[in-house]
Amino acid sequence: MAGSAAGPRRRRLPPPGTPEADLDTPALVVDLDAFERNLDRMSEAAGKAGVALRPHAKTHKSIAVARLQIERGAAGVCVQTVWEAEVMAAGGIRDIFLTNEVVGAGKLERAARLAREVTLAVCVDDPGNLDELGRAARRAGAVVRVMVEMNNADYRAGAPPGEPLLRLAVQANDTPSVDFLGLQAYNGAGQHISGYPARLASYRRLAALVEENIDMLARRGVHCRVVSGAGTGTYELEAASGVFNEIQPGSYVFMDAGYLANRDRSGAPFRDFEVSLYVLTTVMSRSAGAVLVDAGLKAVSLGNGPPLVRGARALYTLHTRLADEHGVLMPDNGGDLPPLGEQVRLIPVNCDPTVNLYDHLIGLRNGRVETVWTVDARGY
Amino acid sequence: MAGSAAGPRRRRLPPPGTPEADLDTPALVVDLDAFERNLDRMSEAAGKAGVALRPHAKTHKSIAVARLQIERGAAGVCVQTVWEAEVMAAGGIRDIFLTNEVVGAGKLERAARLAREVTLAVCVDDPGNLDELGRAARRAGAVVRVMVEMNNADYRAGAPPGEPLLRLAVQANDTPSVDFLGLQAYNGAGQHISGYPARLASYRRLAALVEENIDMLARRGVHCRVVSGAGTGTYELEAASGVFNEIQPGSYVFMDAGYLANRDRSGAPFRDFEVSLYVLTTVMSRSAGAVLVDAGLKAVSLGNGPPLVRGARALYTLHTRLADEHGVLMPDNGGDLPPLGEQVRLIPVNCDPTVNLYDHLIGLRNGRVETVWTVDARGY
Repeated sequence: MAGSAAGPRRRRLPPPGTPEADLDTPALVVDLDAFERNLDRMSEAAGKAGVALRPHAKTHKSIAVARLQIERGAAGVCVQTVWEAEVMAAGGIRDIFLTNEVVGAGKLERAARLAREVTLAVCVDDPGNLDELGRAARRAGAVVRVMVEMNNADYRAGAPPGEPLLRLAVQANDTPSVDFLGLQAYNGAGQHISGYPARLASYRRLAALVEENIDMLARRGVHCRVVSGAGTGTYELEAASGVFNEIQPGSYVFMDAGYLANRDRSGAPFRDFEVSLYVLTTVMSRSAGAVLVDAGLKAVSLGNGPPLVRGARALYTLHTRLADEHGVLMPDNGGDLPPLGEQVRLIPVNCDPTVNLYDHLIGLRNGRVETVWTVDARGY
Repeated sequence: MAGSAAGPRRRRLPPPGTPEADLDTPALVVDLDAFERNLDRMSEAAGKAGVALRPHAKTHKSIAVARLQIERGAAGVCVQTVWEAEVMAAGGIRDIFLTNEVVGAGKLERAARLAREVTLAVCVDDPGNLDELGRAARRAGAVVRVMVEMNNADYRAGAPPGEPLLRLAVQANDTPSVDFLGLQAYNGAGQHISGYPARLASYRRLAALVEENIDMLARRGVHCRVVSGAGTGTYELEAASGVFNEIQPGSYVFMDAGYLANRDRSGAPFRDFEVSLYVLTTVMSRSAGAVLVDAGLKAVSLGNGPPLVRGARALYTLHTRLADEHGVLMPDNGGDLPPLGEQVRLIPVNCDPTVNLYDHLIGLRNGRVETVWTVDARGY
């Protein structure tokens, strides 16, 4: 196979004690104090409500972070891809829920093999796919746990509630080498409804539907041991529901500008968790009324909007869109332009795809590097 | 330093001969026949026009691709970051132009060290930064070539044309350990003007300004040996200008939906180059009227719009935005929904930040894997 003889060159990582000001930019940095408070708050909330906490590792893709979550009482992790599951298993995580359908012979075979090593659950929403999963599990000599995913919005995965969902659950119950575990009902559309009343209403529609379907399954003799769902935007609601017994928030560890835009029940900004993740960037050119920083589309995911910006001396607004390699910032309220070389922090609007751009998370405490975590499952 | 004991787990790469249908998705694939025709066409165009071709490696970030470009007569490569320059130098590329300002003591020191190993040019647009660059070069015992970047649009880097640019060029000429090479004038805003007349007008404004400034410098005794610019959208214009003697297109190797939207001088779609880069994805769930594929924001950069979609049996339109991990596709003209497991190809709207999401480019010929290239300078 042709390829690069030199192979990938490894980046020098900043040693512990490196001041933030000396970090090479763009860099993805974690405020460890805020991060740890976020972990503690979510563990406490789940504990008080008496539900299992299974944080979503697609946010951080990092074995080190998953271990810290489990040390604080998480039951295991959620992942979104077979690759993430393999990486987490290699890192010693023993209980993994892949909150997605696994489609294609290659991926099914890998999932089945993995289920011999760790406790693995996957989602299904299609009878043919469930058949294939069962055959892959039998070939591997494994038992794969199955969560039937309930569709709850247009253009999302999941079996339609009612008869189709029932038939799948019954099929899962009857399929050898498959262990029917329960229902996956993630309210993806509801997490980012900014206003509390509308977010609550969205949750209530989902919870009512889930309850109806659990009851219907029970009447047909199919018992759901696990009902899993919730994200950072609604975690309290599912936790207190009496319907869900597992929550799977991900973004709470880092927060992002997307969740900062939510409101809580009093109408105040949602601040249950603190921003702990920043893209650190440097002013590298000044033009009339604006500065260019060295973070663009390759350093901050733009999928759901522009990042927020925090400078040391001023707040900035991102002007127009990010270019591939540059962001253009203008000081708010006509403030002074920062000098060349000044560092500015960007708060991504969506932490997950931004973390996925980096190989490392640089953990800072008191303005110095304390630790560097690998984004082990980055890519794919 | 804490971190993941297991370290990053390495992906299995598909061996040569693997059929496209067996590739794990999402995957970034290159149609090698189309890719090679693109390389040949650009080399031929530069050769005919008598200008140097220095392709931009920020597009592919791959040593293997850079070598193929140089084998076909490229003078060297452009890069956008010190990291890319270091990676290309480690891969044996001896002549590198960093088309960006280098700001901060750490980066300047790295650039100066690199200039001892390879021929390195960098951009400057600020007198203080140029001073620092000179000092870093002297400390390293190196000579760094300098291209003064000319600003040609709001909110882009570069020194203002006229006196500020002149003063910088004179300063560069007078700075020990710095070798003033000429002007960088990239028409970033013009590349994606779809209509030919407006794109031509944008080019002409820039070329006139460049000519004026070169003449002004010459009258003050400052000679520009290199005048560099152009991208895939305007390469023919700069190549034929008599003003530029170097072109630096990047995207032509892969093309993307952004450049497909351009028109040529006859008003026909711009097809000087062929799409050679695709994100291969798999249908993993079906819902009413649409399918979900396993490529979302982490697999296709969305910075400048949604990807185009090509299926084996139908054309699809991307419905709404991509989610983190999923895309929702609807068949055009009410066609049939593809079955679970069917592969679909996405054409990114912007190839550069999409390539930056992947560790490998999988080269296909006649439907089978022929080679796998590392995206050596991915990240940062």
